[in-house]
Amino acid sequence: MKATVERATLLKCLAHIQSVVERRNTIPILSNVLIEARSEGLRLMATDLDLQVVETIAATIDINGATTVSAHTLFDIVRKLPEGSQVEIAVAADKMTVVANRSRFSLATLKRDDFPVIAETDLPTAFALPAKDLRELIDSTRFAISTEETRYYLNGIYLHAIDGKLRAVATDGHRLARIEIDLPEGARDMPGVIVPRKCVAEVRKLLDEYGDDAPIDISLSTSKIRFRFSAEATLTSKLIDGTFPDYSRVIPTANDKLLKIDAKSLSEGVDRVAAIATTEKTRAVKLSLAHDRVTLSVTSPENGTAAEEVPAEYAAAEFEVGFNYRYLLDILGQVGSDQVDVHLADAAAPTLIRENDDSRALYVLMPMRV
Amino acid sequence: MKATVERATLLKCLAHIQSVVERRNTIPILSNVLIEARSEGLRLMATDLDLQVVETIAATIDINGATTVSAHTLFDIVRKLPEGSQVEIAVAADKMTVVANRSRFSLATLKRDDFPVIAETDLPTAFALPAKDLRELIDSTRFAISTEETRYYLNGIYLHAIDGKLRAVATDGHRLARIEIDLPEGARDMPGVIVPRKCVAEVRKLLDEYGDDAPIDISLSTSKIRFRFSAEATLTSKLIDGTFPDYSRVIPTANDKLLKIDAKSLSEGVDRVAAIATTEKTRAVKLSLAHDRVTLSVTSPENGTAAEEVPAEYAAAEFEVGFNYRYLLDILGQVGSDQVDVHLADAAAPTLIRENDDSRALYVLMPMRV
Repeated sequence: MKATVERATLLKCLAHIQSVVERRNTIPILSNVLIEARSEGLRLMATDLDLQVVETIAATIDINGATTVSAHTLFDIVRKLPEGSQVEIAVAADKMTVVANRSRFSLATLKRDDFPVIAETDLPTAFALPAKDLRELIDSTRFAISTEETRYYLNGIYLHAIDGKLRAVATDGHRLARIEIDLPEGARDMPGVIVPRKCVAEVRKLLDEYGDDAPIDISLSTSKIRFRFSAEATLTSKLIDGTFPDYSRVIPTANDKLLKIDAKSLSEGVDRVAAIATTEKTRAVKLSLAHDRVTLSVTSPENGTAAEEVPAEYAAAEFEVGFNYRYLLDILGQVGSDQVDVHLADAAAPTLIRENDDSRALYVLMPMRV
Repeated sequence: MKATVERATLLKCLAHIQSVVERRNTIPILSNVLIEARSEGLRLMATDLDLQVVETIAATIDINGATTVSAHTLFDIVRKLPEGSQVEIAVAADKMTVVANRSRFSLATLKRDDFPVIAETDLPTAFALPAKDLRELIDSTRFAISTEETRYYLNGIYLHAIDGKLRAVATDGHRLARIEIDLPEGARDMPGVIVPRKCVAEVRKLLDEYGDDAPIDISLSTSKIRFRFSAEATLTSKLIDGTFPDYSRVIPTANDKLLKIDAKSLSEGVDRVAAIATTEKTRAVKLSLAHDRVTLSVTSPENGTAAEEVPAEYAAAEFEVGFNYRYLLDILGQVGSDQVDVHLADAAAPTLIRENDDSRALYVLMPMRV
C-alpha cells in the first residue's frame, strides 16, 4: 500500500472516524482504523461492533493495499502536522509509515483480515430525508432518551411509520418527546426500529456538515440501519433488539387547562429560580397558576426560597403543579416559537407541551410532588 | 442592611469572590461571602482560611449592615438575572432577600460575626509592581510549581530579593524556572517568601483585568502577603511556612554545548513526535544532536516510532539526550523569542534553556534516560 493525501482531507475524515472508536477496548483491533488504498481513493473504516463508519476520500494511490492502525494516534498525528501538508502513507512489513515534511512515523499495525465488519446487506426498506428533517427528528427527541441501561429498549429513538407519517419518539419514563413528518417515499412498510443513542449522536455530528436540503439515504431492516450521507460517508448501526413501549397511552388528550406563555420568559424564569436548587433533592420548580399569570418558585432546605412571576394567558381554575426544572428546560429549549401551549389537567397528571396545535413536535412531562 | 447595585458590577465582583470559595467545606461559613453595606458602597469578602479576597463596589446604600450568604448560589443567581437589572439586597430576620425585576430570592444566612478574617496588619515590606511585570513573574514560573503535597515547600513561587533584583523561582525537582526583574523600591529588605499556588492563580486571574502599567501594591511579612489591585480589590494570603531549597546549585554554569534553535519549530516538532506517546511510560523525547541539526524521536512500545529533523545551529560533539516532552513544551511555551539557546553538557546533566544571555528568565530541565 502506498498513497498520498492532503492533510486537511485526511484530518476531516479521521475526526469522524475516531469519534466512533472507543477510548478503551478489550479487543485491540477495535482501537484501529482500517485503511484501504483502492483505485477510487483511500477508504477508512472504524467500528465498535455495534456502529460502523466508512468514508472514502480523494488520494493519489500508488500501490493498492490495506492495513489497520490506532485511530486515535493517527488522528493526533495528522492533527499536529502542518497545515497544507501532503501526507504519504505506506505499508512495509508490519508497519505503516506516515511521512509529511520532515516528520516520519512508523506505526504498529494489526492485520486487516481481523477487522470486524458489519454487513450492509438485506436492508429492505430504503428512503431519503433532507438533512434538515433528519436534524429536526433528532434534535426534538434525543434529550429524552433514557440513560438507564436496565431499560435498554428506551436507550434510543423509536422510529416508525404511522398514519402516513414518519414518527420519532424518545422517553425515559419521566418525559416523552414525539415528532412526526410526512412519510417519505419508500418508508410505508418499514418496521418500527429503535436507533441507539451512540448512532444518533454520530449521525447528528455528521449532519452538521451538510446543507439543509442534502438528501440522506436511510436503509434499514429489523436489525440494522444505514445512513448514507453522500457517496463518501456511510454510517451503519445495529438496532436495539427490544420492544418500545406503547407510548400513546401516556400522551394526554383531555387536559382541559390551557396555559399560553412566552417560552423564553418561562425558560429564563425557571432557570433563575432554579439557581438556589443546588442539591439533588431540590429539582422541583413549582408553577402556581392564577388568572393570566404563573408564579414560579423553588424551595431549598439549605439555601432558602426563590420566586418569579411570569405573565401568561390562563383562564382556568387556580392550582399548583411541580416539574423537574431540568426536564422543563430541556423541552423549552426545543420549542422554536415565541409562545408555547401547556395543556394541564391536575397536579399529578401528565402535562402536554407543544408550540401549538399544528406543531410537528409534542412533549409530555410528568409532574413532581411539591 | 439594604442596598441597590447594578447587576453587572455585582456579577464581576462575585466572579472573583466565588473563585476563592472552595466547592466543599467542612466549616459551613467558608461557603459564604460576607457582604457589608457601608457608606462607601458594598464590601464583599471571601476566604478559605489561607487566602482572602475583599472587594468594594459602588452601590446605593439605604441601610448599613452585614450578613453572609452562599457565594456560589449568589453568583449563580446574579449571573442568571437579566442584563441591565438593578439588584436590591436587604436583610430581614435571618434571611437575605435579593430582588430584581420580577424575581425574588430569600437566602439562608450565617452570622457575620462568625466570618473568619485574615488580619492585614504587620506587613513591614511594601512595594509596587506594574501589572505587566507581576504577570511576567507569574507566567514564567508557575508551570514549574510542584504538585507533590509532601514537598509542601515547593508548592508555590519563591519570591526574594538578591543582587539588586526581585527574583521568582519555582521547581518540582525535574525542572526549574527562574526570572528576575529590577528590585522595586521598598523591596530591598524583604524576606524570601513562598507564595502558594492558589494565591498565584487568583492573583493571575485578577491581573487580566488591569492594564500593563497599572500599579499593584504588594505588602508582605514572613507569614503573609497582600496584593492590592486598586482601592477596590485586595487579596491577602498566608505564605507557605517552609524553607525553599538552595536552587542555585542546580543551575548549570559550565555547560559547554550550545544549541541555537527556532523555538516554534522545536516546539511543534516535539509536539508532533509526542503524538505516539500515548502512555505514561513514554514521556521521553530523544534529541539527537548533530552538526547544525537535531533529530527528535519518540519510541512507544505500543504505537511504534516517530522522528522529525529540525534545522539548528550546533557545532559541538554529536550526542543524544532525552527530556520529558511535556516539560520541554512547557518551557518552550514561555519563550517569547524566535530563537532559543539550549546549553547542554551531557545526557545526564541539567540543561539550561533561555532566550539568550540577556533574558530575564531562565529554565533548567533534568534529562531522562532514553
